[in-house]
Amino acid sequence: MTGEEGAAPRRGLSRRGLLGLAAGGGAAAVVLAGGGFALGAGQRQGAVADVVHPFFGVHQSGITTPVQEHLHFAAFDMMPRSDRDDLIELLKDWSYAASRMTAGLEVSATGAVGGPAEAPPDDTGEALGLPASALSITFGFGPTLFEDEGGDRYGIRDRRPPKLERLPAFLGDDLDPAQSGGDLCIQVCADDQQVAVHAIRNLSRIAFGRAKLRWSQLGFGKTSRTTADQQTPRNLFGFKDGTANILADDAAALDEHVWVAEEDGPTWLAGGSYLVARRIAMLIETWDRVQLGEQERIFGRDKREGAPLSGGTEQTAPKLAGLDAHSHVRLANPGSNGGTRILRRGFNYVGGNNSLGRLDAGLFFLAYQRDPAQFIDLQRRLSTDLLNEYIRHTGSGIWAIPAGAAEGGYVGQALFA
Amino acid sequence: MTGEEGAAPRRGLSRRGLLGLAAGGGAAAVVLAGGGFALGAGQRQGAVADVVHPFFGVHQSGITTPVQEHLHFAAFDMMPRSDRDDLIELLKDWSYAASRMTAGLEVSATGAVGGPAEAPPDDTGEALGLPASALSITFGFGPTLFEDEGGDRYGIRDRRPPKLERLPAFLGDDLDPAQSGGDLCIQVCADDQQVAVHAIRNLSRIAFGRAKLRWSQLGFGKTSRTTADQQTPRNLFGFKDGTANILADDAAALDEHVWVAEEDGPTWLAGGSYLVARRIAMLIETWDRVQLGEQERIFGRDKREGAPLSGGTEQTAPKLAGLDAHSHVRLANPGSNGGTRILRRGFNYVGGNNSLGRLDAGLFFLAYQRDPAQFIDLQRRLSTDLLNEYIRHTGSGIWAIPAGAAEGGYVGQALFA
Repeated sequence: MTGEEGAAPRRGLSRRGLLGLAAGGGAAAVVLAGGGFALGAGQRQGAVADVVHPFFGVHQSGITTPVQEHLHFAAFDMMPRSDRDDLIELLKDWSYAASRMTAGLEVSATGAVGGPAEAPPDDTGEALGLPASALSITFGFGPTLFEDEGGDRYGIRDRRPPKLERLPAFLGDDLDPAQSGGDLCIQVCADDQQVAVHAIRNLSRIAFGRAKLRWSQLGFGKTSRTTADQQTPRNLFGFKDGTANILADDAAALDEHVWVAEEDGPTWLAGGSYLVARRIAMLIETWDRVQLGEQERIFGRDKREGAPLSGGTEQTAPKLAGLDAHSHVRLANPGSNGGTRILRRGFNYVGGNNSLGRLDAGLFFLAYQRDPAQFIDLQRRLSTDLLNEYIRHTGSGIWAIPAGAAEGGYVGQALFA
Repeated sequence: MTGEEGAAPRRGLSRRGLLGLAAGGGAAAVVLAGGGFALGAGQRQGAVADVVHPFFGVHQSGITTPVQEHLHFAAFDMMPRSDRDDLIELLKDWSYAASRMTAGLEVSATGAVGGPAEAPPDDTGEALGLPASALSITFGFGPTLFEDEGGDRYGIRDRRPPKLERLPAFLGDDLDPAQSGGDLCIQVCADDQQVAVHAIRNLSRIAFGRAKLRWSQLGFGKTSRTTADQQTPRNLFGFKDGTANILADDAAALDEHVWVAEEDGPTWLAGGSYLVARRIAMLIETWDRVQLGEQERIFGRDKREGAPLSGGTEQTAPKLAGLDAHSHVRLANPGSNGGTRILRRGFNYVGGNNSLGRLDAGLFFLAYQRDPAQFIDLQRRLSTDLLNEYIRHTGSGIWAIPAGAAEGGYVGQALFA
């Protein structure tokens, strides 16, 4: 835990942000503010040496960051009658709190236990004593933030990236609107689920009166790697997937496939990306009854090593002509798609079971790309994927991911300049 | 990964167990059986040095075992028309698979990738390459297993422990029958959620035709410690709870409060215990608006250190007279309960959010005791707990936990002797 002094802007939460934390506590809330950025009371006890991903930087963390063990993803809608100042203030408050939590600190200087006994604590406290745990917090703006049936609520309609549109319908979509979309999104990843849950919970509190949690999703057991030294993990079908992912040290591929360039426009999004989330339910019990040879034919990889069925080892480039024409690897491989690549960092999920005793389980797919067309083209190509018999897309969303915030600034600041 | 040779009985799954794994695969399933216990194909690749809790032993693992990071708990109902032989065979199959998985192996010798291409794999494969991850698998028998509206289905009615009865109703219960009860239960704990999920999924497959998943619950961030060197973790109210838990090295307390003794009866349950599970929803947003001083008064502990408000440090015994008469610590402390103690090993859970944006979150309470009356007395005493304003009990179950299986035997064997 080093460098905390420089890790956050030297200010506190807004009056509104504190009001969210203290709502119901009455006037005492405002007294809490204090102002300034003090260490000491806010520092977690017992924090051990740990990985810290700084919040401020050229790009937001959580994209090329080595994939963590756990996910808590949340989509928010702005509250009715909120205005431009509310939105900017919320983004400032979120940035301040995120910069602290990613450094292993509480959401404010007084935190869970440093405030007056007569006020609700700023921080909910369940992460007290836990280290930063590689926490990353990544914010995004949905199409409806720029314009919805309420019109140009935040004065940013003409700044919407033309490519930031609701995704088209895909063959086999079975989307639940209540688990899709959202004006804003926050992707929280950490190596400790308690730390991830703590972040979403406290950011949700801070949003009080300005934005409301719309839907959320927990995940575990990362399904992709983003650095060469990470093993390719297995999805709930038991296969290694995402072997050909874009890795964090491949600057050229990131520039070509992930980061929005100045010339792509709009200028405020340069250095950012587009995030597509898809909740993909897996028909686990049906899959489990498929013969091993058939499972491998469907994926185009052997189950043991993850090697393409055309030969070699996991890292061998598949010879596409040697695979079933509708196998997953053949259809998803850049060689079948004019070189289209995306950066995946999805997670497995299990949400219990239904009344038939079947597991509610699947893949929460998360992909970053320079242009939403990359995902759309790939997904259309997958319309004949043999895997489709065993999966259902039940949730969906797209968000523009602004570049990283500068020290002392806030995420998305360029959008309001 | 050492000692696998001795870690499981030298036999495979029953024909029925294999049929479950292969259901839908047709006649090929039976060919799979092979028989014998072969290593090699079944061994996970890339397994690293790791904690292994042996399945066989005097007591089942998962009770005094140091609490792991993750939980997947599942309740099962026996299928209609199943008989005594089905039940015994299921327990044999489950024991065999559990003894393998806790050793870091797949559910059978051929596992995920070692079988013929023409049959569904025995193992679903998502834990291939992952170490045992401190996996523990604990089995229990509910009151309805011994007798239900179908009568004495398994010929064990007269062997029901008289104390194994459905829990009485408690003040404030808001139980969902679909998330309560069950003929059988399996508590799976592991330091890797993917490993825990893999275990429940594969045990559920093996049960095919004999038992069906009734409900299940994931959890994280253990809320109690069971060894002195574990930190007391925090619940989602941000407080350390369970400081006074019974620890694994306190043999006298375990004998007095946790293990069923010979003289308690019935004989087949000696060395076992009774497990009570309660799904306790927390009204997170309401709690978060309570003043710090009031939160501490309700718990009877300070939030920072977990010390009793009567003074000292976390480990100081509370002076009960110095606490609010309805504070949680005062009511739950053995000093208020004629010395009643239980062994707790609960987990936090978050299941998403409701349409108001409120988190579906709380505590999945798990407690082991020598006599269900211990829990019942405590829970009745907690009827005036100040905490009750912020929690709702939404799920409940009780199971007799047999002693550990002997090498080559199966869990619960004494019940059928």
